[in-house]
Amino acid sequence: MINPHLLQCKRSYLFFEIEQRVSSFRQKHPSANLINLGIGDIALPLAPSIKDAIQNAVLQMSQEEGKKGYGPGCGYRFLREAIVDTEYKKYDIDYKEIFISDGINSDICHASDLFNKDLTVLIADPVYPLYKMTAAIDGFKNVVSFDGITLLPPEEKGELIYLCSPSNPVGVSLSREDLTKWVQYAKKHKAIILYDGAYADFIQDSEKPKSIYEIPGAKEVAIEMRSFSKSAGFTGLRCGYSVVPKELVVDGIEINRLWELRQETKTNGVSYPIQKGAEASLSGQGLMETRAQIKEYQASGAIIRTFLEKQGETFLGGLDCPYIFWKVNKPSWDFFDELLEKANIIAIPGSGFGQGGEQYMRLSTFCTQTQAQEAIQRLCALK
Amino acid sequence: MINPHLLQCKRSYLFFEIEQRVSSFRQKHPSANLINLGIGDIALPLAPSIKDAIQNAVLQMSQEEGKKGYGPGCGYRFLREAIVDTEYKKYDIDYKEIFISDGINSDICHASDLFNKDLTVLIADPVYPLYKMTAAIDGFKNVVSFDGITLLPPEEKGELIYLCSPSNPVGVSLSREDLTKWVQYAKKHKAIILYDGAYADFIQDSEKPKSIYEIPGAKEVAIEMRSFSKSAGFTGLRCGYSVVPKELVVDGIEINRLWELRQETKTNGVSYPIQKGAEASLSGQGLMETRAQIKEYQASGAIIRTFLEKQGETFLGGLDCPYIFWKVNKPSWDFFDELLEKANIIAIPGSGFGQGGEQYMRLSTFCTQTQAQEAIQRLCALK
Repeated sequence: MINPHLLQCKRSYLFFEIEQRVSSFRQKHPSANLINLGIGDIALPLAPSIKDAIQNAVLQMSQEEGKKGYGPGCGYRFLREAIVDTEYKKYDIDYKEIFISDGINSDICHASDLFNKDLTVLIADPVYPLYKMTAAIDGFKNVVSFDGITLLPPEEKGELIYLCSPSNPVGVSLSREDLTKWVQYAKKHKAIILYDGAYADFIQDSEKPKSIYEIPGAKEVAIEMRSFSKSAGFTGLRCGYSVVPKELVVDGIEINRLWELRQETKTNGVSYPIQKGAEASLSGQGLMETRAQIKEYQASGAIIRTFLEKQGETFLGGLDCPYIFWKVNKPSWDFFDELLEKANIIAIPGSGFGQGGEQYMRLSTFCTQTQAQEAIQRLCALK
Repeated sequence: MINPHLLQCKRSYLFFEIEQRVSSFRQKHPSANLINLGIGDIALPLAPSIKDAIQNAVLQMSQEEGKKGYGPGCGYRFLREAIVDTEYKKYDIDYKEIFISDGINSDICHASDLFNKDLTVLIADPVYPLYKMTAAIDGFKNVVSFDGITLLPPEEKGELIYLCSPSNPVGVSLSREDLTKWVQYAKKHKAIILYDGAYADFIQDSEKPKSIYEIPGAKEVAIEMRSFSKSAGFTGLRCGYSVVPKELVVDGIEINRLWELRQETKTNGVSYPIQKGAEASLSGQGLMETRAQIKEYQASGAIIRTFLEKQGETFLGGLDCPYIFWKVNKPSWDFFDELLEKANIIAIPGSGFGQGGEQYMRLSTFCTQTQAQEAIQRLCALK
């Protein structure tokens, strides 16, 4: 009676496994002062303008004239329009092409509902493990890996492509040239790209495209997913969105229509005050506050990168993305345990992102500069 | 490339269709004062203690010592425990058997992930249309209807049962005797019951079971789903939960373990401030406030029921559930248009819940007593 694909997942989910090991370490060493360079989670408090907006929204809901019941399954227009104004007007994207959700995780999982399970799915290795997990649970039978380090299209034909750039865990962002190769690849194979742009706001190189829609023709092949989690400190608040252009037509069917149908059917939308908070993060004041947070994380990244460079270590990323993928030349779970026990640092073993990540560690730069300084001192002592 | 089951859904989703018709009516009659007895949505503002809790939670998140990132995929322990303390201690249910979500809608859809798509699914007719929609989209091939008016188990064997009591749209709650028949049926056929108890807090008859776990043996066959939407005015805030007892074992596998795995894999949990709001709704003060809201809706229901009785109309429900299922003896979409145009009342055509609901209208009693009085005056004039 049980879905056999779910059974195969067992208890192997990466972040869950890390939580278990860390929790067991904490029980043994309750006074240890851990530095978390593991899961990419906020290290700074919520920006004041977001807090104010959420407080005002619930105050409004508690008053007769401001009460709010079920919201639109696809999100409130005020937020969809704010996203267009801030990010997508330049690509001529309309608010009806923006779908609000409680995060990219959900959108990645929900996208499966739209497609036939006999499609050939392309997933990088190493990559954020959810893609492979959800493709398996949802019953996609043909899953093909491509090189997650170079992040270039493979020779084989793929039909549904999970593409993450700036990439998790490798920490690099595709160049305009390489992203163009993906759009051409998708056109050639009539494939759809699910473009996970969770870290777009971290790109520092102005030559790198922040959106896949900077590439001509991308609207005909790509759904772009974005989140307030990393850009505006929303990991604990839960809000993200998918851009589904009307130009994206498969077998004569507008994917935008199907996405809307799926959302209107299967969800009751995202919490109203949270959407008001997300809107506030895109206001002038909100952007000022959240960009200052991103700058802090980037400065922490620079501290760690500079240290690794000076030590002659090999690594990728950390410039256009808050992750550094460090070649440690050891089995990565062994190195995880070593880092945790000897340096009290939590990082993520590269093999957790697939075989291609073995002998790497992912360091998150979601930490304060003070924490980054402390981390490199501990790494120094470790040598 | 497209999921053929999703294509079949087309634009037929009930609430969406109603929205379209109402929106078109509003454009033609912008000054019409509509009374909404349609979608079961809040008519009262958010309770003060819930507002306070959410405001405090985001204030906390905006401070260094209170910041909150990713929460547990299965929900915060404080909320899981508050639910046990308020509702489930008497059934010896543990907090690890409670899974927080953004609403029953999501849990209904996500439950599909656990099961093989060749199971025989039992769905009432008439019933809340999501069950049938999600079973179709998710690829269940064998869907069998049972009588949604009597809500009794059919002769045929079913393996996965969507059971809603107090029932939407019929508005009645299963008696202990009838619910016992379902538990026995499930045991006999080794079936699983997905028990949607969204309206449990509206039961006025103290003899009716509020939880399926009042029936001996139910823990071995039933997942119970509950929501803060109707009980605490959370339709715009989004929070609910599923109870998955450890005793529920299928093919030797604990469903509780699978549910946890699914949630830890596919979700990042529910917004922290919303979970704090839900917790507050279960505090002494919160329960006092939200129970007063329920009493108001029940009083509105009594006004409408009394009116229909006096008019000699035939109807079901409205006592243990905020819905009245009114036998109108006309095609129900025709009656919908008539009610909207002549009485400016929004109700839901029974046929939207399945063929078994044809010639019925569902009236929601989620309105103030003032609105209920106004509604019966308009209904009177209609005759």
